[in-house]
Amino acid sequence: MDLSAARPLAGGITEREFTLDAVPGILWTPARASASAPVPLILLGQPGGIGLRRMYPALAARARSAAADGIATVTLELPGAGQRPPLPGADAVRAELRQALAAGEQPTEEVIDRLILPLVEAGVPEWQRTLDAVLGLPEIGGRVGVSGGVIAMGVRLALVDSRIAAAGLFAGSFVPRTTLAEARRVRIPLHVLLQWDDEGNDRGRALELFDAFGSPEKTLYANMGGHTGVPAFAGADAARFFARHLGRR
Amino acid sequence: MDLSAARPLAGGITEREFTLDAVPGILWTPARASASAPVPLILLGQPGGIGLRRMYPALAARARSAAADGIATVTLELPGAGQRPPLPGADAVRAELRQALAAGEQPTEEVIDRLILPLVEAGVPEWQRTLDAVLGLPEIGGRVGVSGGVIAMGVRLALVDSRIAAAGLFAGSFVPRTTLAEARRVRIPLHVLLQWDDEGNDRGRALELFDAFGSPEKTLYANMGGHTGVPAFAGADAARFFARHLGRR
Repeated sequence: MDLSAARPLAGGITEREFTLDAVPGILWTPARASASAPVPLILLGQPGGIGLRRMYPALAARARSAAADGIATVTLELPGAGQRPPLPGADAVRAELRQALAAGEQPTEEVIDRLILPLVEAGVPEWQRTLDAVLGLPEIGGRVGVSGGVIAMGVRLALVDSRIAAAGLFAGSFVPRTTLAEARRVRIPLHVLLQWDDEGNDRGRALELFDAFGSPEKTLYANMGGHTGVPAFAGADAARFFARHLGRR
Repeated sequence: MDLSAARPLAGGITEREFTLDAVPGILWTPARASASAPVPLILLGQPGGIGLRRMYPALAARARSAAADGIATVTLELPGAGQRPPLPGADAVRAELRQALAAGEQPTEEVIDRLILPLVEAGVPEWQRTLDAVLGLPEIGGRVGVSGGVIAMGVRLALVDSRIAAAGLFAGSFVPRTTLAEARRVRIPLHVLLQWDDEGNDRGRALELFDAFGSPEKTLYANMGGHTGVPAFAGADAARFFARHLGRR
């Protein structure tokens, strides 16, 4: 991992850009984190295809909130986003998706698979390498969470990476059938956000996914409003979920 | 209202039993509440037919939590519960309900109506008289909330009593069709708890009720476990909902 110099931001938080195998990312740490007092980590997911630069304000706000709870955060440009080359077939399947939605139809399972699964297959191993690198830093240690972004990626990471102790998921993107099947094998504590009136989202599928999770502790937290309308108090309750599960015991 | 002497409990909370038109109730206030610093109030609902004495430990725990946030709480024996005479027809309809459930059937809409509506009709006016009396005390003032108990009673009170500024509802009892219709006209902020695996509860009806509420701010908060398994963190998040809506601005 190629880390830039630490840049102090307002509010006791340090920002470092990095590249990992030429993919850009950002690491935020509470300024007081040190080798003798290492902090837990949350991996921040992102929506597909938007890119780190446009997502920066929202990501930095979540990083600040986590840092106030003594938790570091890291995010990585997704495959196909920002300056990264598009995933094979991505343009074609997005065109098919737009066509279906414009016709007032739900996309088929096959379109959802082609839209989401390549991102999961390419992105999750990159997230794991990011965790390898960041958890090697002396000031990072303890439990690891994953928060937000493409929900199929969060579910896959929670399933395949035993370092993930808790997941805050946003049921606001398409859920492939594979993800439903994987959800049954997930056992870690979950906090699942759902926007009840999310225009582009299949609420029934989201409820089916929540029901499928095998975790003994799972909370569905549904609020009014569209995809981008998550209220501030929902963010605060999600932050408490992570503080409860990642904080010092 | 006939108030007993104040009894100080541990943790800065005062308990007073009372009777109102011969119906027993309990009022808890933060010890520091006074005429010059009055506190907001939450009316604590109860499940039907169990009675104040058996519910006391759970109610007192919620009273303590509210008092820690500077909020008073009051509860009243429900019609037909404790030492109160049974509601007309209550025994017959409960026998029909038990019969349906024993046969593995959902109760009919007609049975749900006969089970719940008499409680709503008799109980909600009593709650309103309780509010009249308690809000007349000098140390109680500010906003009023309603929390838990038979959800049809909470919905009715929220609809007919403009003093209710926020409602924390527990979607764990039968929902008559009338309640669904009334829900569409409710506009106050809502925090709706649902136990996902509640054996005796119709989850589909609970989701339909949540969808029906006309409130611009409503949160569905669903957790794993049965009817009595609401996790402690869900109580804490509900407490924050009330602190946000009833607290000083």
